[in-house]
Amino acid sequence: MKCFVTGGAGFIGSNLVDRLIIEGHNVKVYDNLSTGRMDNILGATESTWFSMTEGDLHEVELLRSAMEGSDIVFHFAANADVRHGPEHPLLDFDQNTIGTINVLEAMRSNGIKRIVFASSASVYGEPETPTPENTPCYQTSLYGASKHAAEGFIEAYCEAFGMTASILRFVSVLGERYSHGHIVDFCQQLKENPDRLEVLGDGNQRKSYIYVGDVVNAVLSTMVFSDPGARIYNVGNEDTITVRESIKVICEEMGCNPTVKYGTEPRGWIGDNPNILIDASRLRDMEWRPETSIYAAIRKTVYWWQYENVR
Amino acid sequence: MKCFVTGGAGFIGSNLVDRLIIEGHNVKVYDNLSTGRMDNILGATESTWFSMTEGDLHEVELLRSAMEGSDIVFHFAANADVRHGPEHPLLDFDQNTIGTINVLEAMRSNGIKRIVFASSASVYGEPETPTPENTPCYQTSLYGASKHAAEGFIEAYCEAFGMTASILRFVSVLGERYSHGHIVDFCQQLKENPDRLEVLGDGNQRKSYIYVGDVVNAVLSTMVFSDPGARIYNVGNEDTITVRESIKVICEEMGCNPTVKYGTEPRGWIGDNPNILIDASRLRDMEWRPETSIYAAIRKTVYWWQYENVR
Repeated sequence: MKCFVTGGAGFIGSNLVDRLIIEGHNVKVYDNLSTGRMDNILGATESTWFSMTEGDLHEVELLRSAMEGSDIVFHFAANADVRHGPEHPLLDFDQNTIGTINVLEAMRSNGIKRIVFASSASVYGEPETPTPENTPCYQTSLYGASKHAAEGFIEAYCEAFGMTASILRFVSVLGERYSHGHIVDFCQQLKENPDRLEVLGDGNQRKSYIYVGDVVNAVLSTMVFSDPGARIYNVGNEDTITVRESIKVICEEMGCNPTVKYGTEPRGWIGDNPNILIDASRLRDMEWRPETSIYAAIRKTVYWWQYENVR
Repeated sequence: MKCFVTGGAGFIGSNLVDRLIIEGHNVKVYDNLSTGRMDNILGATESTWFSMTEGDLHEVELLRSAMEGSDIVFHFAANADVRHGPEHPLLDFDQNTIGTINVLEAMRSNGIKRIVFASSASVYGEPETPTPENTPCYQTSLYGASKHAAEGFIEAYCEAFGMTASILRFVSVLGERYSHGHIVDFCQQLKENPDRLEVLGDGNQRKSYIYVGDVVNAVLSTMVFSDPGARIYNVGNEDTITVRESIKVICEEMGCNPTVKYGTEPRGWIGDNPNILIDASRLRDMEWRPETSIYAAIRKTVYWWQYENVR
């Protein structure tokens, strides 16, 4: 298959790119390198099956021509920063919603019918748990709103133009090339000062995580369908860890014992869902299973961040 | 209250404007007159409580300055044509989603905290019926996707910036100043040739309608809440009429007896939900009741279209 991967130099995108090449696919990466890094695809660039266009989702003509001849689009480019949404309210809309519209239009004018979209469990807002895919969504963050808006247009394009979509709603993803979020914030703080850690929120937030290798497995599992329409899949471990517990794991891995200063609020920031637990039975029914536990995912991430992150 | 009404020269918007003035409010209309008409607000313009800025939602600086000093924004400007979405896929996104983002940003920079948003029951796609507000949404039209995306950003702005929103999901609205949709299509066809009527779809689609006066009542009913957050309300009669039955009513009202040619598909067009029936108990619990039946709403609309529509 000729695969077009937006955000292919990013954290999740580059892990997907490596795997697609291993599986024998032709891969073209489209990335503006704003948060993506060439380091992430150093290995991939050595393959003859790999090519790349450096470009932004807003360069619509470049996007359209770069995409030409592809069989499938993996749309992973996004602003992935949930926490700072209110500081620049148009950013999520611009990057994630308009960006997706531009991808859909480029697909339409190229006659490309298949898309895989990296969405987020944050589209649920603060739902009841465990949360299956048919839970009503209420947006509590600009990031969630931008992803959910993109999902809706993907669904409508499937209906109007006979496209096929896999929409994957990820919980927080961890693993090699992880670049943002509170695990990396903690690592950064502890590197600067191993004796003190400041935490947003009271630390009792229950989070779920998923290892990036399991995400890539999930993406490939959804390739079995090719009839028109959009299918939505939750992707996450079906257990949780509190922020306090995750700090214990990080500190063990980094060999430090800081004084931890917690905030007083149950939420660390606006849009922080303090209780994440998804129901992934739709993917489980397709034989997908996470192979890496939350604890192992955190350990792998911290190890990578300490010893292999060249940034 | 100082009320700012986008789309205030349009069908629903102008009916709301008249009522707000009657209730003693100060009203400023913001309309680009693309589908809105000055005729619709002829009465309103005679009031000293009325003012107007002719402008487009994309003229962000004009929008911001026109809105200054308002207490509440009624955001009713939209592209309301569901059927032709696939012919110009960016139009709904541009008018309805970007348009709403621009309204939210203008509110934020003016410190305005209250918004009423004219959404649509089409955001449900093809849900089970009767459909309450907490039904999961799946987008089957570009119009629905554009409105649902706007809803999500309104929710996120409420969360991030302490705004208060009423989001009203209307079924098809009928009444004086009605300007588009299949009732007007039928009237137009029968005016040109009273002996023949062509119908998209097999005519067995079950539709619900609501009279515009009942919509205005619903809008005002939701004004009781002022704490931050977005509340969603279905607005519609809780019964249905088939397209075939509605044709009978129209023909009676117009005094004609045409040969009716039906299509073969259960849907008239892409995104046509053939079975609309909403659950309006959330508004009923707030003492709102539709005062005009579906049959009466159709008759009033046809009467107005025949004898009072100056277009």
